[in-house]
Amino acid sequence: MNDDVARVLGGDQRAISRMMTALERRDSAVAPVIKELDCKTGNAYTIGITGPPGVGKSTLVDRFTGHLRDLGLTVGIIAVDPDSPFSGGSILGDRIRMQRHYLDSGVFIRSVSTRGQGGGLPRIVKRYGVGQTELGIMTVADTVVVALMPESGDAIQTLKAGILEIADIYIVNKSDREGADRMAAAMRAMLQIASEPQEWEPPVLLTQADRGLGIEELWEKVKEHRSFASAPADDLGQPSLLEKRRSDRRRAEFLESIQEELNHRLKARIENDPTLRLMLEDIAIGKREPFSTAAELLEEKHIAGFTFLSGEGESLP
Amino acid sequence: MNDDVARVLGGDQRAISRMMTALERRDSAVAPVIKELDCKTGNAYTIGITGPPGVGKSTLVDRFTGHLRDLGLTVGIIAVDPDSPFSGGSILGDRIRMQRHYLDSGVFIRSVSTRGQGGGLPRIVKRYGVGQTELGIMTVADTVVVALMPESGDAIQTLKAGILEIADIYIVNKSDREGADRMAAAMRAMLQIASEPQEWEPPVLLTQADRGLGIEELWEKVKEHRSFASAPADDLGQPSLLEKRRSDRRRAEFLESIQEELNHRLKARIENDPTLRLMLEDIAIGKREPFSTAAELLEEKHIAGFTFLSGEGESLP
Repeated sequence: MNDDVARVLGGDQRAISRMMTALERRDSAVAPVIKELDCKTGNAYTIGITGPPGVGKSTLVDRFTGHLRDLGLTVGIIAVDPDSPFSGGSILGDRIRMQRHYLDSGVFIRSVSTRGQGGGLPRIVKRYGVGQTELGIMTVADTVVVALMPESGDAIQTLKAGILEIADIYIVNKSDREGADRMAAAMRAMLQIASEPQEWEPPVLLTQADRGLGIEELWEKVKEHRSFASAPADDLGQPSLLEKRRSDRRRAEFLESIQEELNHRLKARIENDPTLRLMLEDIAIGKREPFSTAAELLEEKHIAGFTFLSGEGESLP
Repeated sequence: MNDDVARVLGGDQRAISRMMTALERRDSAVAPVIKELDCKTGNAYTIGITGPPGVGKSTLVDRFTGHLRDLGLTVGIIAVDPDSPFSGGSILGDRIRMQRHYLDSGVFIRSVSTRGQGGGLPRIVKRYGVGQTELGIMTVADTVVVALMPESGDAIQTLKAGILEIADIYIVNKSDREGADRMAAAMRAMLQIASEPQEWEPPVLLTQADRGLGIEELWEKVKEHRSFASAPADDLGQPSLLEKRRSDRRRAEFLESIQEELNHRLKARIENDPTLRLMLEDIAIGKREPFSTAAELLEEKHIAGFTFLSGEGESLP
């Protein structure tokens, strides 16, 4: 196990891949390794890049990675695709477009859509994380970038998707298309209304990733946001925005780890308990109502050897 | 409580609104009412309509509702918007566009994005549910319709969004725009490859909802899919696809009700337990690692009066 820790710290790509696979499976055998590694982490700055399909995220990440490498920085890319039987092709597509960095030992690329996958990855030094991600995992980033394009629909419609509230930086990519300036102006106006004074007001950048335009500005804005978020909240030692975000993330990871394991145990318990299995079957065929059956079960707290968490703080019999 | 049941069955809009609000809050006080009502439900056919922002879902639902009303059917519409401080305007927009049906006693409209909201709804007879929904809740529909438009990006990019796998029927709306036929043809080709023989092969329809074009065909395809899904799986009394879908939905509702309550109790327990609260603080500031701490806690099963579900089937001390 200490061997695994040393291998991961030494940049052994197979050890890192094994560890990430175990983590994806929430295999508790990897817990001691993660525990050892924890104090070595936190030096990377994590940038999340998301946006609707077709907006040019892969090209953007490719060019952004090139820029960071030119500056002598190392990059880790976690590409998150929706778990889909269809999307094998798209992941491959992303990889091909990133091939420019495939043999670069300063770039680590990993897809996390399919489990157990991930052979043949290049040597890794995780430092600047640039991820292609969906909405749900934007919480893992220090700076969140949302990419849109003139054809994403008009700005009002974009608001409707709810993605205007998660970003620290907005990009209107493919800005040579008609309506780009108008869209950026409308977004800036809305963001100005929505932002409180003292708060970070997300900038809106125009980019043409395929021609490398606007990439430098993106990096400048990321650095600006990083400075803003890293600044102490006050003179009294209160945590900075960045520290707060990272603390929230660690708390969430702890709670989610417990919740996932409890849900797993709940399902295992129902499968192994004839009374509960029958109850579930009655629910499925309409002999019992789902919501009220759940409420009754939780009310009794202890049915057929099934111990529930109590919210009141006492230890259950 | 029996009064509430009678009122809901009698179509009392305030009683129904109150009940839906309580359900949204997962208030267990409503459980006995839901239990009584359960055997009266299941007669409505539920159609889920989703798609990217700007694709024209509201107009589509408005026209589709008009068509169903012309056929003498009653309609219930549950409009689900992402929970967002910005989207108040969009919900209002949807409502305005649906105003044509607002005073029609055969149409029930409710938004479920904001809690506690929902006054002034028209008289309700829930029969045909037509909902504007996000991906996550498509599981509640008997027939799932995904609306796209030529500008949603090309067909390959659409696959990437993962929404091509959830639909029973596809619509290319705004089909007067350039590229609609090409997009529909590409989607049909991919769906043919992806569908197994014997399985339902999702049709791809061209619509112009604002002009009412393609709405009749949509209803015909919904009926076709309903027939297909309702057909017995074999002569041996095996459940139909529709019965299977609905059973799965009931099972999921039961499990999710328990999980949400357990998660709620977990959080309450941590807040009330000084040892666990300290543990969470150590995690936040980096003194403890989240994943391994969760694993250790679950391993010990019982820390500081904190009883966990056991997966092995025995009753915990």
